[in-house]
Amino acid sequence: MSWNQKHLLDIESLSSDEILTVLDTARAFKAVGERAIKKVPALRGKTVVNLFVEPSTRTRISFELAEQRLSADIINFSADASSFKKGETLKDTALNLEALNADFIVIRHSASGAPHFLSRVLDARVINAGDGAHEHPTQALLDAFTIRERKGNIEGLNVTILGDILYSRVARSNIWALTKLGARVTLCGPSTLVPKTFEQMGCGVTYNVDEALQTADILLLLRIQHERQRKTMFPGISEYTQLYGLNKARLAKTKSEALIMHPGPINRGVEIDSEIADCERSLILEQVTNGLAVRMAVLFLLNGGKGPQELA
Amino acid sequence: MSWNQKHLLDIESLSSDEILTVLDTARAFKAVGERAIKKVPALRGKTVVNLFVEPSTRTRISFELAEQRLSADIINFSADASSFKKGETLKDTALNLEALNADFIVIRHSASGAPHFLSRVLDARVINAGDGAHEHPTQALLDAFTIRERKGNIEGLNVTILGDILYSRVARSNIWALTKLGARVTLCGPSTLVPKTFEQMGCGVTYNVDEALQTADILLLLRIQHERQRKTMFPGISEYTQLYGLNKARLAKTKSEALIMHPGPINRGVEIDSEIADCERSLILEQVTNGLAVRMAVLFLLNGGKGPQELA
Amino acid sequence: MSWNQKHLLDIESLSSDEILTVLDTARAFKAVGERAIKKVPALRGKTVVNLFVEPSTRTRISFELAEQRLSADIINFSADASSFKKGETLKDTALNLEALNADFIVIRHSASGAPHFLSRVLDARVINAGDGAHEHPTQALLDAFTIRERKGNIEGLNVTILGDILYSRVARSNIWALTKLGARVTLCGPSTLVPKTFEQMGCGVTYNVDEALQTADILLLLRIQHERQRKTMFPGISEYTQLYGLNKARLAKTKSEALIMHPGPINRGVEIDSEIADCERSLILEQVTNGLAVRMAVLFLLNGGKGPQELA
Repeated sequence: MSWNQKHLLDIESLSSDEILTVLDTARAFKAVGERAIKKVPALRGKTVVNLFVEPSTRTRISFELAEQRLSADIINFSADASSFKKGETLKDTALNLEALNADFIVIRHSASGAPHFLSRVLDARVINAGDGAHEHPTQALLDAFTIRERKGNIEGLNVTILGDILYSRVARSNIWALTKLGARVTLCGPSTLVPKTFEQMGCGVTYNVDEALQTADILLLLRIQHERQRKTMFPGISEYTQLYGLNKARLAKTKSEALIMHPGPINRGVEIDSEIADCERSLILEQVTNGLAVRMAVLFLLNGGKGPQELA
Repeated sequence: MSWNQKHLLDIESLSSDEILTVLDTARAFKAVGERAIKKVPALRGKTVVNLFVEPSTRTRISFELAEQRLSADIINFSADASSFKKGETLKDTALNLEALNADFIVIRHSASGAPHFLSRVLDARVINAGDGAHEHPTQALLDAFTIRERKGNIEGLNVTILGDILYSRVARSNIWALTKLGARVTLCGPSTLVPKTFEQMGCGVTYNVDEALQTADILLLLRIQHERQRKTMFPGISEYTQLYGLNKARLAKTKSEALIMHPGPINRGVEIDSEIADCERSLILEQVTNGLAVRMAVLFLLNGGKGPQELA
Repeated sequence: MSWNQKHLLDIESLSSDEILTVLDTARAFKAVGERAIKKVPALRGKTVVNLFVEPSTRTRISFELAEQRLSADIINFSADASSFKKGETLKDTALNLEALNADFIVIRHSASGAPHFLSRVLDARVINAGDGAHEHPTQALLDAFTIRERKGNIEGLNVTILGDILYSRVARSNIWALTKLGARVTLCGPSTLVPKTFEQMGCGVTYNVDEALQTADILLLLRIQHERQRKTMFPGISEYTQLYGLNKARLAKTKSEALIMHPGPINRGVEIDSEIADCERSLILEQVTNGLAVRMAVLFLLNGGKGPQELA
């Protein structure tokens, strides 16, 4: 077992051994979620602050439940970035939360690097729950967990990430995680949203959807954020669906054992057909279940937990 | 003891024995509320999601406290129905919550039948906390509990429900519960709001307030929802108060042992005089206390609890 | 040890012995905050309602965490005063909360005297978390705790309160607490905001900033509430900063051992220079830490706790 991090700020700075340690630990926590009593005392008497400066429902609930199942004391602090303009700086807010003896700060923020900044000014342990277009490390860890659980191994797999890559922290964290674990990652989508520069991260880029589908063992779709559509870069929802949406015809081009993933919430009929989202090859709800286990594992390891044997 | 339900969706499908089982169990939980330590471990390590798609303060707090006293882990998920239009469907939201190993979903929704729909797509146990104009089963159970506690028995009692019956889920659930338990239920109010068709549910309808008051052992007032007054059907607040509001003159026409109930929040001076709301014959605050006990009982029974003797 | 209060409504009605009892008890709770497991079972199975009718983040979080560390069950009930206009009265809301077997109501309200009113109609114990321009007793207790911890004793110290005193409940509670404990309190600020009538509370008033700074052992700055500036009374932010803001030049006029306090959140560059807020003589973050300990102590004493030896 290998874990030498004080914080979980990004995937980029994790070793593959550290990633695998999280996945191994998460396996034990997934079993906790299947028990009659889904609770362990690992964080009893510890204080976790969920500091969500950017709105979130799913990730916040997943973290909150992970913290409850670890028996932590929890403070939810939601604010929009604008409220920081009128009042306290992020630094002052964080220092005030730490002055309440907070042991962990889980932060989501619209500014890339906000968690790293906090880690430099705080003694508390910081977990990045999504920072701007930078990283969303627990999402990548839960995706890697899900793939490994189903495929046995990640090394040598072909993973295609399809959609709006440019501003996607999910894509960035997944590229780091999956390439570190030995997968071949290919990005695909409209050329305005998938710049060639991503190749510097060690993955391939293609604008040929058929090719991207045919080779994939794992097809990771991203959510089309149509509520905040960027007009100058995005071809329009219906055009996107027509060119890149996963429908029956496109699914027929994939390997029969290829699996489908999506960080949610899905737009049925936009980036994925409703029927495909619900089919046996879709891992979308398993990702949610695994996200809880992975977040418990991260909190547990950052708290100094020595690995799954402690939960036996 | 008799309890064969996986969900609590409505009163209509409960047997009188099942209703009485809830009331018996609630009696034990009411005693828990009077202890120095108002907490039992019955739901320790279980996850309850409070999914309130329609705003609510009182019912949500009552459920949340019931869950805390049963030692459950709790996720509060509030959303307005409009947010579901832009994004996920109710089904997807519920499936995602269940993927977090939720054991119970407590749902309030503006659409009649929403809890029934969830019960068909989820493995989790579903509790209806009010669905549209359909049912509000825990309200009826707490009302029945309150009546039985004060009157000893419900069979043979005359219960008058007075007010805006047409769109009232409280009225509907109470009609089912009280007639199943052998009470004679009479509805009274403006004819536009109390259609004769309600007689098909096994209760009487009268537009003669004096008669409705004179026979009543229990007078159950409904809240006039003046903030969303339906102009075409409703005679106007002051006219309502004049014709149906419970004042001293009307109270004088009731039996001296008749008791007054109201699901709250009350409009002092509208459907009830302020002094009457606070008098000894008013059970309004007892209903609140009993609501907590009844909700603990429902969660306990749905969790497979075998009855009050387990709490001894 | 001396504690004879059922409620904590204000500092005015506490004896100096009672204040010292809170401070002694808080010392033991501060030690709890430094333990690996920051939790004691003192309020297990008790229900605390946080009824915040006026917005608050810092005080609410501090109370909520104090309640969690005492193992209480917690209901957060936030409302703006306007919602009370349409619906229930404050009294009815409070009676309904008490009907849920609430043991404690922590109330913040824009109306002076709201906590006192509740204490007359409820059996539950009431804690004032700030009522209008009247009092904010836990703030004064945490300030007294912080001063005593650093200076050893409060008797005989010179404390200068600088800023907008007129509408400050923090100032009012501190004047009561510190004069009861034997400090000499001097108020200073623009004459429109520091009326001479405050001398009736047993403190001095001066409009000479240099004099107020030179004598101070403790300099307690108040927040300039520039978001709701009262035009007719207030000289303007930049003029205030120029005349009263604590900068290096003014700090140089104070005794070298004088300490700086502020209830937060601070406006860097307005009432205090950024560098001074972070310097060694600033106790601002210690106040936050101590606030948690003081609130735990208050809840513990009101619950019938017999003093620090119970936590050993």
